[in-house]
Amino acid sequence: MAKELKELTSRSKDYSQWYQDLVIKADLAENSAVRGCMVIKPYGFAIWEKMQRQLDDMFKETGHVNAYFPLFIPKSFLSREADHVEGFAKECAVVTHYRLKNAEDGSGVIVDPEAKLEEELVVRPTSETIIWSTYKNWIQSYRDLPILVNQWANVVRWEMRTRLFLRTTEFLWQEGHTAHATSEEAVAEAEKMIEVYARFAEDYMAMPVIKGVKSESERFAGAIDTYTIEALMQDGKALQSGTSHYLGQNFAKAFDVQFTDQNGNRDYVWATSWGVSTRLIGALIMTHSDDNGLVLPPKLAPYQVVIVPIYKNNEQLQQINEKVAGIVEKLKALSVSVKYDNADNKKPGWKFSEYELKGVPVRLAIGSRDLENNTIEVARRDTLTKETVSCDQVEIYIKDLLDEIQKNIYKKAFDYRTSQIREVNSYDEFKIEIEKGGFLLCHWDGTAETEAKIKEDTKATVRCIPFEGDKTPGKCMVTGKPSAQRVIFARAY
Amino acid sequence: MAKELKELTSRSKDYSQWYQDLVIKADLAENSAVRGCMVIKPYGFAIWEKMQRQLDDMFKETGHVNAYFPLFIPKSFLSREADHVEGFAKECAVVTHYRLKNAEDGSGVIVDPEAKLEEELVVRPTSETIIWSTYKNWIQSYRDLPILVNQWANVVRWEMRTRLFLRTTEFLWQEGHTAHATSEEAVAEAEKMIEVYARFAEDYMAMPVIKGVKSESERFAGAIDTYTIEALMQDGKALQSGTSHYLGQNFAKAFDVQFTDQNGNRDYVWATSWGVSTRLIGALIMTHSDDNGLVLPPKLAPYQVVIVPIYKNNEQLQQINEKVAGIVEKLKALSVSVKYDNADNKKPGWKFSEYELKGVPVRLAIGSRDLENNTIEVARRDTLTKETVSCDQVEIYIKDLLDEIQKNIYKKAFDYRTSQIREVNSYDEFKIEIEKGGFLLCHWDGTAETEAKIKEDTKATVRCIPFEGDKTPGKCMVTGKPSAQRVIFARAY
Repeated sequence: MAKELKELTSRSKDYSQWYQDLVIKADLAENSAVRGCMVIKPYGFAIWEKMQRQLDDMFKETGHVNAYFPLFIPKSFLSREADHVEGFAKECAVVTHYRLKNAEDGSGVIVDPEAKLEEELVVRPTSETIIWSTYKNWIQSYRDLPILVNQWANVVRWEMRTRLFLRTTEFLWQEGHTAHATSEEAVAEAEKMIEVYARFAEDYMAMPVIKGVKSESERFAGAIDTYTIEALMQDGKALQSGTSHYLGQNFAKAFDVQFTDQNGNRDYVWATSWGVSTRLIGALIMTHSDDNGLVLPPKLAPYQVVIVPIYKNNEQLQQINEKVAGIVEKLKALSVSVKYDNADNKKPGWKFSEYELKGVPVRLAIGSRDLENNTIEVARRDTLTKETVSCDQVEIYIKDLLDEIQKNIYKKAFDYRTSQIREVNSYDEFKIEIEKGGFLLCHWDGTAETEAKIKEDTKATVRCIPFEGDKTPGKCMVTGKPSAQRVIFARAY
Repeated sequence: MAKELKELTSRSKDYSQWYQDLVIKADLAENSAVRGCMVIKPYGFAIWEKMQRQLDDMFKETGHVNAYFPLFIPKSFLSREADHVEGFAKECAVVTHYRLKNAEDGSGVIVDPEAKLEEELVVRPTSETIIWSTYKNWIQSYRDLPILVNQWANVVRWEMRTRLFLRTTEFLWQEGHTAHATSEEAVAEAEKMIEVYARFAEDYMAMPVIKGVKSESERFAGAIDTYTIEALMQDGKALQSGTSHYLGQNFAKAFDVQFTDQNGNRDYVWATSWGVSTRLIGALIMTHSDDNGLVLPPKLAPYQVVIVPIYKNNEQLQQINEKVAGIVEKLKALSVSVKYDNADNKKPGWKFSEYELKGVPVRLAIGSRDLENNTIEVARRDTLTKETVSCDQVEIYIKDLLDEIQKNIYKKAFDYRTSQIREVNSYDEFKIEIEKGGFLLCHWDGTAETEAKIKEDTKATVRCIPFEGDKTPGKCMVTGKPSAQRVIFARAY
């Protein structure tokens, strides 16, 4: 691949094009032959696997188990819960037939009109309905509760405008669906899981998030309350990165799931659901990357270290290979993932720019002078700085450096976000400030009408009513009516 | 759950009902509200996760990476490869619309006739077509080869008669799809992967398999050759457990995927594909389990050891809890997975039968006399034998016992299979022997016509032409024509 093919549009020139270029050129994903569906390429999928493994461990530590429910949902199930059908039944893939046959004119295959389904099936946009129809058979008594189940799956929402990772017709996600004997326990579960998501975002993705509760109009269709983690991208737009829903008894009532409590009384079961998706890869890219390419946090990078040899002849390469073998072994012993790229058909300069583009956190380069001096060149992707260090105990140096990079990119993202949080006290000021992007802390009267007006005027929405921070009451910047606390407004992905 | 609810139909009375009972009562899976689709319950899914983790490690050790391709395939793609369309285009789920709307009479939602897709989409029954349409963009030169990609995914084949795990409309699987510069390399890859499957079946599932090549009529639709591993179930029927296909240039030609070789010549790319599915859970169940329930190999059991306390009062329970905590810690240090079930709402007898049903390899029981004597009761699920051993270094005893159980159930399955392999030399004899089940080694003239006649007469098919064993030529038992070697016939799932 020639150098110019790798060049990215700069963020300042066209942020949206920069993102698109980066996803394609770093080999993360591409559009497929099917409208709105992406192909996740091996390098992008390796990031997803790291995320999955870590999240799965965190779900299991908090007592959850995995299961698998059908891809298809009978059409009538979606209608059972009134809000849910409004939110999800509309833009979805509908299976109407179960057979193709050869066209009589030999032109290929056609849908066999005789193989029409009695009831159409919808490809799951989310699984509350099929899962609660199943839970009805699993739950009779309080002894069967709680049920703490998670599913890793693909889902389909027929999106009109799609963007790789951020909004695709098919995407991969996990969806937790839990059932409880009391409202309090369900609320505690929903809160626990938003905490798990926040911890994952901050500790692994190095992405600071604000936790809070959604306004009514941004709530999940069928939820009593939706908790969210909101991140700020480098263009000043918000990205909802994970949600956890307290569903009350809505789905239990829709599917008649009752249980007998310890006193012998019958009641409907209490529910939560919670999910994160491949959208997180989009969030990861937009939080840290720069005009040179991806910047990946060491904890989620497919490989943390790449080593490139610099040599003039085969003899030098052999010597470097030997030296590197020892370093690789020591790095692996410290659980550092490392790739040694001594492929002969690419020049070091090409490799440097390739691994920069792909966001490998640390690049090591070693040449014949290094061999003489027992040194190695260490380049950091996050700061783009280089230094030459001794090979003695370089593995410990690298291990510490990876921790340092993980912290540094978090701090950089945190400092950026801090600079983009502003209190705004009048609607006129709001209209000016929202054009600059960022999280705006404002008083709002809590009504859907006012939120709708603000969205219509400015495209901004309430991202969340934050759990933490200033809880002083005030007056709505639009209507002057009472406001319980400042909430966060932003334009969002 | 009362004891009688757990009782299984015996294998000798009705093997098929025994299987169905066992899958349901051991909480592995159940039928869903969607015809032919199953719900994989947490205990069943935990087995699948163990299988996945191990297979994924083996794929990565052999140089493969994971990726993800779309769920949907444009209808026209299936027609591109002539054999493939015959095999897969027929019984599949067809998406024709992308929107529902509220019915005017308020009765629920209906398909919006205005949201009809221009080209229908098929839910993938297998992904050769969508993947080779993608590879066209990935491959220009020999430098882009080989591509060694695997995908973990759900697939849908509209089956008329379904059985949990063995044949379901939707199932989970992995599908490897590789691209190579030479025919030899592709053949070697297909062979390597059938070896990986055989190693997984024998070393992890403790299930002996016969490796071989399929006859033309049992070949994958679109393959030049299909390699298979065939296992024998306890009812004498064969179960195809994994296949690996050498696809030649068929899909490269169908999707015009060419590359420039080292000499500058253009040629079509060579391909393989290979897969195993949740069907393996059915194979696992039917290979080892008995009239008391599941028997799981220690390497794939969700937990390898369960500990049940036997106590009269809370004081005794406290003492046992303390003792067990030390044993659990030592077992975990040896990477033995263990569950301590001290739930107070179930009696020990209930727990014993529950864990027997669920196939936990080793059950430990400890009571107040054991405390006095520093002993513990060890029960093996495979032999249903019990003995009392000292608690000193019991963890090492258990660790060794798990290895012994893994070996023992393999040996038991191997000995059973050996007893069921018979040479048959005439078609009259064949017709009698096939009624008894088992693998019959017979001479066959290699034609599809003769195979079809045998299938029509006896329901038996060529399971494979085995790689290993007697290669002496002979004469076909039906036509008397020359036969290159004996092949394996059986009735199959």
